[in-house]
Amino acid sequence: MRDESETVLPADSTPGVSRSLARFVERTGWSDVPAAVQHEAVRALVNYFAAALAGCASPVIERAATVFASFRASEAAGLIGRRERTDVLNAAALNAMSANVHDFDDTHLPTVIHPSAPVAAALFALAESTPMSGEQLLLALVLGVECTCRIGLAVSPGHYRRGWHISSTCGVFGAAAAAGKALRLDEGQLVWAFGQASAQAAGVLETLGTMAKSLGFGQAARGGVLSALLAAQDFSGPPEPLAGNYGFLRVSSDHVDPAAAHDTLGREWALLSTGYKPYPCGIVLHAAIDACLQLRRDAAGAAWTSAAIERIELTGHPLLRERADRPRPASSSEAQVSAQHALAVALARGSAGLADFTAESIADPELQALRERVVLIDDPAFAIEAAHVAVRLRDGRSVACRVQTPRGAPARPLSDAELEAKLRALAVYGASGIAVQPLLDALWGLPRAPDAAAIMRAACAPAAAASALR
Amino acid sequence: MRDESETVLPADSTPGVSRSLARFVERTGWSDVPAAVQHEAVRALVNYFAAALAGCASPVIERAATVFASFRASEAAGLIGRRERTDVLNAAALNAMSANVHDFDDTHLPTVIHPSAPVAAALFALAESTPMSGEQLLLALVLGVECTCRIGLAVSPGHYRRGWHISSTCGVFGAAAAAGKALRLDEGQLVWAFGQASAQAAGVLETLGTMAKSLGFGQAARGGVLSALLAAQDFSGPPEPLAGNYGFLRVSSDHVDPAAAHDTLGREWALLSTGYKPYPCGIVLHAAIDACLQLRRDAAGAAWTSAAIERIELTGHPLLRERADRPRPASSSEAQVSAQHALAVALARGSAGLADFTAESIADPELQALRERVVLIDDPAFAIEAAHVAVRLRDGRSVACRVQTPRGAPARPLSDAELEAKLRALAVYGASGIAVQPLLDALWGLPRAPDAAAIMRAACAPAAAASALR
Repeated sequence: MRDESETVLPADSTPGVSRSLARFVERTGWSDVPAAVQHEAVRALVNYFAAALAGCASPVIERAATVFASFRASEAAGLIGRRERTDVLNAAALNAMSANVHDFDDTHLPTVIHPSAPVAAALFALAESTPMSGEQLLLALVLGVECTCRIGLAVSPGHYRRGWHISSTCGVFGAAAAAGKALRLDEGQLVWAFGQASAQAAGVLETLGTMAKSLGFGQAARGGVLSALLAAQDFSGPPEPLAGNYGFLRVSSDHVDPAAAHDTLGREWALLSTGYKPYPCGIVLHAAIDACLQLRRDAAGAAWTSAAIERIELTGHPLLRERADRPRPASSSEAQVSAQHALAVALARGSAGLADFTAESIADPELQALRERVVLIDDPAFAIEAAHVAVRLRDGRSVACRVQTPRGAPARPLSDAELEAKLRALAVYGASGIAVQPLLDALWGLPRAPDAAAIMRAACAPAAAASALR
Repeated sequence: MRDESETVLPADSTPGVSRSLARFVERTGWSDVPAAVQHEAVRALVNYFAAALAGCASPVIERAATVFASFRASEAAGLIGRRERTDVLNAAALNAMSANVHDFDDTHLPTVIHPSAPVAAALFALAESTPMSGEQLLLALVLGVECTCRIGLAVSPGHYRRGWHISSTCGVFGAAAAAGKALRLDEGQLVWAFGQASAQAAGVLETLGTMAKSLGFGQAARGGVLSALLAAQDFSGPPEPLAGNYGFLRVSSDHVDPAAAHDTLGREWALLSTGYKPYPCGIVLHAAIDACLQLRRDAAGAAWTSAAIERIELTGHPLLRERADRPRPASSSEAQVSAQHALAVALARGSAGLADFTAESIADPELQALRERVVLIDDPAFAIEAAHVAVRLRDGRSVACRVQTPRGAPARPLSDAELEAKLRALAVYGASGIAVQPLLDALWGLPRAPDAAAIMRAACAPAAAASALR
């Protein structure tokens, strides 16, 4: 039985949340989107393709692609960084999985949602068979991300706290909205698309760290496209799939704030609260890595190496230790949430990329030794995202660095050049062999491109592009 | 924030629920299944095909089939009552939707789950390309239904009370178990299949009465097959997707009883607590309809017609009135939960089939007049499933009938002959044109059939069968 005080909504439900979002999606045009948000949409796509190029050949994608290959109805859509083509629904799923598999995609900080992967994957899957300009795709991306994050805000923090995998549960709504915009659904059909999404919103946190997590992500993108396609055929749904008595919001969260889903629509934009990770590990570690990389750069002038390190003190909010105190990580996933490993690799190598969190790196004797010298110190006065790193050297010297806001956070965004560098590095890591410069040119030029699908032709490995020309 | 008293499980989770179910699925053979359960599995399939033959041409299926046709990767599987063929995943989805669209499929009374549709649809979709005997299919059906209902018991009643569409959320696990058994997955792979199911378990009650409800059902069947196919490729999942801290049970219900998922496995069987509806309407109305049909049969001898009725008194548990007091239903869905309409049609026509709940029937002046003469009377002493109907005639006479247990409930099961009659009637309603006798012969002979897929050849409309022979 639930405590009555937990029930925020009156018994007769709050009407209009689904319709408010649907109306916003139908009526908003590109010129209604502020210039800063327009540019952020392009940046979100640079980050999306960077992450997908890193993940496109991972075992998760290989195995999923093997199964999905038996259910390939057409070659209407490309797969980022891969040669084969597949149908729209499968491409939406697999590309969303590629973009998230290394947890290197974007993060909407207020909800911890990774919003772009399901939305962008849904849109580019459609773009190769449903003609749309770059501007149209970017607008649909902005609106889809907005819906995902708005719905996430309405169920936060209770939804994630219960254990729902918020990026996939809310992502299917955003993917539905984006696909619906691209397919020019009207307001009523968009409400129905949300209804189809409510029948498919799934994913639990227990799957994190396993391949099943990626399936949830893929299904969010696939389900979003399917929702919009069904709604286009007047496949009906309830009038209030979100805020109804038994709608998604109340069913999946103990506290619901329906106003968060639609208040300030068109005035505040989720993309402006979304950051891009410079390092493929838990966000709570980013400030500490920033500090270590800064100390390492300084060390080059001061002539010391990691062998000279006697002790490393990491001071931060108690949550940092709770989430990341893992002195002996046993897997790549564990290394990505190990403060000891992150500090060791950043100090020893001056880098913190995907290659620094592999099984090989974990076994590196230099890093093993350094991890043992890390001491974590709690200080509740620290902001969660801040960190202070002090390194004591064997010769008696000490160096220290404090970082208040990590790189990549909305308050300290990666520059366009840094995002480009991320894409270049991840393309090398993923080894898909695609030419990076034409893809980057196409991405930065997208707002003026007559055909958004040109991006996919640049992002797929050669054989797929050839197949597209046939 | 949740009240601590609501948390049944200790913080470190209960291990072994997923593995217990997986082990049971892997190790149980046909000879381990009691004869009564073996026969019930056949009966469940007769009811499944009956329901699907009624629903196969409904607007829901027509519209879904139109969209799914663009994503048909093969013609490996037939669609019940239809001509076209499609691939295994689409067939699983569409056939499950057909079997549930009229709410005429089976009901596991302790959980109110409709268990057979997603499980049977998953199995028959596989059967045409993965050779299996009738016995193998029936065994997988029994095990799949068991898993669906066991998981449902573990989250009941909190899960449904929150608003989860329990047939689809739990159905994906049962479909995964059944498909996994058919594909001969081992215990570890079955746990992974449950993990993939946990990433896809979806559906909210707000969708009931709309086409989106059917999508949830279809996705449960499709997701179950996909889960098993992925697990067969060693696509990994968490070790405890059900009872883990952030596993399906705790995330989706405020009270969890993990023991219900595995205690008495192999000794108690969910199929023996599953009933088949003789009437396409809310189960709460079934006893009242039984009573009216009995009165109507008696009336033939006593020479009165519906025009002679002055007043109809229905006495039952207060829940009956709460759920079904709808004197002026506006749609077929509303008529199916209208006590007034159910009583009127049963008394006036002596029948209560799908044709009696259409828009045309709702508008029938004779029924309109009779509905106005119905009076609902609460009596908390009544069992929820019982009803008493008293009819006062204009000539001063009164007749009455009390029904304690409705037909179709496990305690008063439909006979095999009645199930056959249901299939014959629903096949006529659905108008697919298939020959019913060969299908019935194949169904009753399934335990001895070398090839389970023969059923589908009998259940599909002619063109599909021809295509299968090509």
